[in-house]
Amino acid sequence: MRYQPQKQYMDAAIEDVKTHTSLNEGGPFGACIVKDGEIISVAHNTVLRDHDPTKHAEINAIIKASQELKNHDLSGCVIYSTTEPCPMCFSAIHWANIDHIVYGTDISDVKKLGFNELDISNETMKDLGKSSLTISRDFEKEACQKLLNYWVSHSNKQLY
Amino acid sequence: MRYQPQKQYMDAAIEDVKTHTSLNEGGPFGACIVKDGEIISVAHNTVLRDHDPTKHAEINAIIKASQELKNHDLSGCVIYSTTEPCPMCFSAIHWANIDHIVYGTDISDVKKLGFNELDISNETMKDLGKSSLTISRDFEKEACQKLLNYWVSHSNKQLY
Repeated sequence: MRYQPQKQYMDAAIEDVKTHTSLNEGGPFGACIVKDGEIISVAHNTVLRDHDPTKHAEINAIIKASQELKNHDLSGCVIYSTTEPCPMCFSAIHWANIDHIVYGTDISDVKKLGFNELDISNETMKDLGKSSLTISRDFEKEACQKLLNYWVSHSNKQLY
Repeated sequence: MRYQPQKQYMDAAIEDVKTHTSLNEGGPFGACIVKDGEIISVAHNTVLRDHDPTKHAEINAIIKASQELKNHDLSGCVIYSTTEPCPMCFSAIHWANIDHIVYGTDISDVKKLGFNELDISNETMKDLGKSSLTISRDFEKEACQKLLNYWVSHSNKQLY
């Protein structure tokens, strides 16, 4: 039976961005990893806080989840991302053997904000790389767009 | 003037894989980041040691370099990779604003060993993503291929 994405997990990803003063820690992006109906990790982008260009929300969520499970193999997991994972994060999700990506806004929505995106969609990465990942787009997109708008209105925001 | 890759930096990347018992720590891949003729970081793949699917050599080298420089922006740097960076690492290199990638063996050489590669070349990533990165391929390829052969002959090797 096809996996049915659930709002509560995207809400957890959104909340993680809005708390922890994370609007100063990096871009307005959150992620949540779920296995068998249980949240394994929730994380946000910390590129600026950590002085580390790799610390996107999805990478942070994968690191937390693999530490939690003490395994680099996250087979059976689903990742929720507030925005379509960038090619770095898509590939990290592939390497982690995660089964399914669920996301809200698109890379192109974020590129408009001024981030220096490699504008390659997850569908293109999947097709070119012959990945077996399942992708669900536009999930809770309005709530994810609101998160981007919230960041746009935030006075301390910083592009990178 | 176009940057001329130098053997000593690729040698440093290869050496880092062969020491630190790193053949048990992850795949047989090394990376070295150089700025203004000075090595900023050298690293190898530690996916197995760290239980972390994101800990490829290039990611480890970027993290070390950004910590060293206390900046997520590695503009002006060159990265040497023993094997063509996978799409995760290519994208991380892009996000880090590194100027130039120099690599030895190809993703396709490594796919033959059995790694679950997303088979998308750096040139394809660059073209699709409209990245300004410069790429030098086949540099010290024979030495890099020897490193792969060394790993193949190693009794404790582990695919992931």
